[in-house]
Amino acid sequence: MSNSASESLVAVTRGPITESVHRGHLAAVDSSGRLIACIGDAGFYTYARSTAKLLQAIPLLEMGGADQFLLTEAETALVCASHNGEPKHTITAASILAKAGLDVSALDCGPQEPLLKSEADRLKYEREPATPVHNNCSGKHAGMLALSRLMNVSTHQYTRPEHPVQQKMLQTVSDMCGIPASQIRIGVDGCGVPVFAMPLSSLALGYARLGNPDGLEPARADACRRILSAIGHEPFFLAGTDRFDTRLAEVTGGRIIGKMGAEGVFAATIPSEGVGLAIKLEDGAERALYPAAAEALLQLGFLSEAEAQLLEPFHRPYVVNRRGENVGRLEPVFRLSHL
Amino acid sequence: MSNSASESLVAVTRGPITESVHRGHLAAVDSSGRLIACIGDAGFYTYARSTAKLLQAIPLLEMGGADQFLLTEAETALVCASHNGEPKHTITAASILAKAGLDVSALDCGPQEPLLKSEADRLKYEREPATPVHNNCSGKHAGMLALSRLMNVSTHQYTRPEHPVQQKMLQTVSDMCGIPASQIRIGVDGCGVPVFAMPLSSLALGYARLGNPDGLEPARADACRRILSAIGHEPFFLAGTDRFDTRLAEVTGGRIIGKMGAEGVFAATIPSEGVGLAIKLEDGAERALYPAAAEALLQLGFLSEAEAQLLEPFHRPYVVNRRGENVGRLEPVFRLSHL
Repeated sequence: MSNSASESLVAVTRGPITESVHRGHLAAVDSSGRLIACIGDAGFYTYARSTAKLLQAIPLLEMGGADQFLLTEAETALVCASHNGEPKHTITAASILAKAGLDVSALDCGPQEPLLKSEADRLKYEREPATPVHNNCSGKHAGMLALSRLMNVSTHQYTRPEHPVQQKMLQTVSDMCGIPASQIRIGVDGCGVPVFAMPLSSLALGYARLGNPDGLEPARADACRRILSAIGHEPFFLAGTDRFDTRLAEVTGGRIIGKMGAEGVFAATIPSEGVGLAIKLEDGAERALYPAAAEALLQLGFLSEAEAQLLEPFHRPYVVNRRGENVGRLEPVFRLSHL
Repeated sequence: MSNSASESLVAVTRGPITESVHRGHLAAVDSSGRLIACIGDAGFYTYARSTAKLLQAIPLLEMGGADQFLLTEAETALVCASHNGEPKHTITAASILAKAGLDVSALDCGPQEPLLKSEADRLKYEREPATPVHNNCSGKHAGMLALSRLMNVSTHQYTRPEHPVQQKMLQTVSDMCGIPASQIRIGVDGCGVPVFAMPLSSLALGYARLGNPDGLEPARADACRRILSAIGHEPFFLAGTDRFDTRLAEVTGGRIIGKMGAEGVFAATIPSEGVGLAIKLEDGAERALYPAAAEALLQLGFLSEAEAQLLEPFHRPYVVNRRGENVGRLEPVFRLSHL
């Protein structure tokens, strides 16, 4: 848990000088766990935060939930999402719950204003309160509740670490990431469920296997493929309007699926290469996450120059002042090399 | 402009581990410029951002503006403020402009939602647009416009670097901070005016002299004293509800006056000790600024334990999730020693 080995990933310039710098760690591994690229400390221990959502969606599909509840690909993508709380997202979360015979009162994630500012503003203009269904994690929670139904366990206190659904989450993340559950450190997430801390390289391995599940047992491999297919076909439901994760899947036609997490965490899978990537910004800054992620994917040759160009507003965003002037810029400053 | 010498200042814990870390630099100097305490690189070059506002208020008072325009202490404090955009703040900004024979249409800072969330929300509930007078810098801009009147120069394009008011700002900051204007690097601020980059120790010196202006010429020394007196008597107008800068002045009865700036900058003056302090968070994170500032003032013996206790919500704030649970905490992690 030392941070001494972090390296500068993204600089924030203003006028003639660098005003701020974001440091971090990065690990890219193949599905055998071999480290193929690294910055800082590949073994840096950190919470996976919302990057775990794609792995946490596995049990629901693996156990036949998508078929039993007739989930659409949009609904499956939403189970993996940190969504914007846009109407399409909230309607879809409610639909998952309805298919599982539940309603939004079952959600125990707490209320949150929609992440999309224009939607948060609209609620205020219309004096409509933000509710748990607007919470960016409502799809994940709906998925956990549906899994409770599938497992024939009570939905009561489904967010508690000892609840069978959370035990299932822990075991699945442990299996996928190749780290014993006893070595996963557990905290509480922004939405109340357990979050899992592990070395970055383990998180990257989980994503490598998600993208190349050939070595996994058939039901799990099928679940992994269906999750990535759902997100590739319905990327809006992974995040939403003006969001990097959605644009990355759109721009690459689903060839790369990436997921952000709070406190500066990002993970991506490149199925055609069998590679998983994980990034942690030391200071937790979301603003530096997409410049770092896009640059890493570009330098590793997974993202083409043309695709990077389409992601430019995320890759090298301007600092804009209140008069609408560009007064600075975020710029990746690292050099990544294959090991 | 190297960042290699930064040190860890504040850790963000969640459950059993440290999730994120904020690094930075700190310099404390006396009014002769002697470094009395340091972390990281005391010579680290960074923009003063809004910490410059107290120094930028000097010309208006030095040239007799407070007397000519009959400015109240609340109005003088607002000229130094990054205010919350609360009704008392916006009314006071409008009042400064009116006393200078101008109105809010003269403001060229761009519109900004009030920093105080409940006030920003109120505007939306009432469908009232945010305007330049809500901009946290509107007091500074009103002061610059009043200074234009006092100097008998056009208010047109008063934000341009070549405008006499901005030249006056640069020269005053240069004088106070003991650094030639030619060595101050200039960028554009969030509100459109020039921002000044200098070594942290120079910014600290500016604040040391602001608090102990005995060596300055009488009109300037008087201006410094009036600025600190105004803030000490009217701390609400320096920031506002639930803001550290306001609480610091309140809790210490004006014995310490501190000012935050964007991108993780903080400066404070302790007039009774003749000391100035300046902090820069490497990553620009505001959330780590008050834990670092309160801890530094405590370790240097300027803040009492009882005062620190009153500032606890800023000094060691909890990370709260969307269900209202405390799931982590920000904790200062540095050890400061007098040189």
